[in-house]
Amino acid sequence: MDYDRIFKAAIDRLHDEGRYRVFIDILRTKGSFPNAHCFHGHNGPKPITVWCSNDYLGMGQHPAVVTAMEEALHSVGAGSGGTRNIGGNTHYHVDLEAELADLHAKQAALLFTSGYVSNEAALSTLGKLLPGCVIFSDELNHASMIAGIRSSGCEKRVFRHNDLEHLEQLLREEAPETPKLIAFESVYSMDGDVAPIGEICDLADKYGALTYLDEVHAVGMYGDHGGGISERDQVADRVTIIEGTLGKAFGVMGGYIAADRTIIDCIRSYAPGFIFTTSLSPVLVAGALASVRHLKQSNEERLAQQAGATSLKARFRDAGLPVMESVTHIVPLLVGCPVKAKRISDILLAEYGLYVQPINFPTVPRGTERLRFTPGPTHSEAMMAELTTALVEIWGRLELEFRKAA
Amino acid sequence: MDYDRIFKAAIDRLHDEGRYRVFIDILRTKGSFPNAHCFHGHNGPKPITVWCSNDYLGMGQHPAVVTAMEEALHSVGAGSGGTRNIGGNTHYHVDLEAELADLHAKQAALLFTSGYVSNEAALSTLGKLLPGCVIFSDELNHASMIAGIRSSGCEKRVFRHNDLEHLEQLLREEAPETPKLIAFESVYSMDGDVAPIGEICDLADKYGALTYLDEVHAVGMYGDHGGGISERDQVADRVTIIEGTLGKAFGVMGGYIAADRTIIDCIRSYAPGFIFTTSLSPVLVAGALASVRHLKQSNEERLAQQAGATSLKARFRDAGLPVMESVTHIVPLLVGCPVKAKRISDILLAEYGLYVQPINFPTVPRGTERLRFTPGPTHSEAMMAELTTALVEIWGRLELEFRKAA
Repeated sequence: MDYDRIFKAAIDRLHDEGRYRVFIDILRTKGSFPNAHCFHGHNGPKPITVWCSNDYLGMGQHPAVVTAMEEALHSVGAGSGGTRNIGGNTHYHVDLEAELADLHAKQAALLFTSGYVSNEAALSTLGKLLPGCVIFSDELNHASMIAGIRSSGCEKRVFRHNDLEHLEQLLREEAPETPKLIAFESVYSMDGDVAPIGEICDLADKYGALTYLDEVHAVGMYGDHGGGISERDQVADRVTIIEGTLGKAFGVMGGYIAADRTIIDCIRSYAPGFIFTTSLSPVLVAGALASVRHLKQSNEERLAQQAGATSLKARFRDAGLPVMESVTHIVPLLVGCPVKAKRISDILLAEYGLYVQPINFPTVPRGTERLRFTPGPTHSEAMMAELTTALVEIWGRLELEFRKAA
Repeated sequence: MDYDRIFKAAIDRLHDEGRYRVFIDILRTKGSFPNAHCFHGHNGPKPITVWCSNDYLGMGQHPAVVTAMEEALHSVGAGSGGTRNIGGNTHYHVDLEAELADLHAKQAALLFTSGYVSNEAALSTLGKLLPGCVIFSDELNHASMIAGIRSSGCEKRVFRHNDLEHLEQLLREEAPETPKLIAFESVYSMDGDVAPIGEICDLADKYGALTYLDEVHAVGMYGDHGGGISERDQVADRVTIIEGTLGKAFGVMGGYIAADRTIIDCIRSYAPGFIFTTSLSPVLVAGALASVRHLKQSNEERLAQQAGATSLKARFRDAGLPVMESVTHIVPLLVGCPVKAKRISDILLAEYGLYVQPINFPTVPRGTERLRFTPGPTHSEAMMAELTTALVEIWGRLELEFRKAA
């Protein structure tokens, strides 16, 4: 067997399609986000501005978070030393789970090592526990949800993105006694649109389905306490399971689900992806705890971030750049070609010191390749003006199409 | 649908079998491992001694690790803010991957958020990239390897534990042109036995198979530089892919694989569990980097740990306790009943302040329930004497069988 030839061919396919990924080697500078340092390549080493971080609110540099992590590090050390069941259940984990349950007004919560693992473990286990369950999945659901649904072994029905009629049609086709689960996201992170959570819950009630809502791009960001779109829309109590992350707006790392006590106990007791893994470092858990608590009582970061996103979208529109429809903090610019998306990104980094990653297949469908900007409370108006000017220059240089200004 | 009834029944099954898990709520005390603090329940709150940590060498409290994490926290902040491809590739990640590649004498390495994810992502992706691949899996392989193999969609052949004849018989049954992968562990963590790596590589050569070796319970622990059993046995160059963890002997959190450049590039480019997840916090990566570097040049912790394990096994044997065969640092005591294993553990914690978790199904096969001790360089001879005396008393109290002293 010539294994090497097979592996090399797999890499060649990526080069041929222009979607071979080169990781940009950076270090963000705590205390002055979004400033960072870029290592060799790209005319570097040099200072850069990061425009594509998912640390949406800059909580990764918040003094409350950093102090809590430092205290935990000095008090209990670097790692947990075990799975949750075998030596790795610290008091920080217990406290954070209580805090997250409270955030979503649920009875209980459960931590995972990442949002990806929380989706994979929770969905696969729910599906296995409900004999004959059919899972209804939004066509734009994240890869981790797709992995969990596949691993559940359940029948899957994919409904068109945010399409209530199509979802109802699919629900109606199943027998009333069939267990059903509707899996969807609140904020779709590559487009910036939002699910009609209440209406999906109406359908769930009508057809006797459970609901599983991924709020990873919304927790910390929406609702008066950072409970996500489900808090903002006052529908959290209608959703069976809410899933979130500690690695985006909360600025640290890790994932979780919140639900009623029995469901949490089932996932805790049956999910291999929860049971058989070293628990989150107590240092991370302490930081996340401080972050969640801070964003529960502070709206300042959320308001500044929304103002920044609104401003950047307006600047892009006014300049005739093809900004995509987005009702959230996410600002996507459509390019539609992996090679061009990478080229724009390369020029921005090499010539302007502005870092935004091109988003290619499989993260988004082919033909919808884009640049995705995430302005935060630390991006100034001057930075946005600089970015817009740079993009307009590159758009002209590469002879890309401008839209009529609004 | 009465979903609540289904979920409650799932929990009741665990209670009925005596294997419902209650997490012990603790905080280890940095600077004085294995001492820890136990919260409510178990006659607590009170100080306890931990006997079941996988932080085998106490590196979670090593000054080099703690200092490196503190520096990273103050320099770059709490989290990475993105996936490796989108804003979350820090210079720490690049450095640690180079260090791990060097540790295993491979061309490249790749970090994952956990050892579980590294196995799941790497095995499932390898299987998908090799059309028609058959995976040969040791029957005692970890749940994460089983998950990865299942998710690969490949045909699986399970060979009897460490049984070379059975493995060869299964290899022989496949056509020469069929791609083959042999997946196994070096140290099996619940029994403490070791795979014949060289002999398995002989079979791989003979039948044209790739090899995938999980060294999570061996990295940092064996070999002159902590490269694992494959370093100790001087066979690392014969293994295609070596997988390890940063959460056990290295004392922090995270997982990785090391292999040749093309294979690493394939997993990096195709594995959803690598691509679609926030990268490890730079704080963890900095700590792991310090830990790996320290254990590359220091044998002191390894020697102290092996001495401790040898001593504890001898004490158990001399006292007639049913210590299982183990050629490694792991010291398992066979109980053979989930209810009794939990009872012994409960008494140890409540009456003696000694914490060891009972190991039940599905972590080990039913009927082989056990207590699993992991003495480390920080457990003194006096602590081992105290533990042995306590176990002898409980063994008598519960009328469990003693073995003839060796």
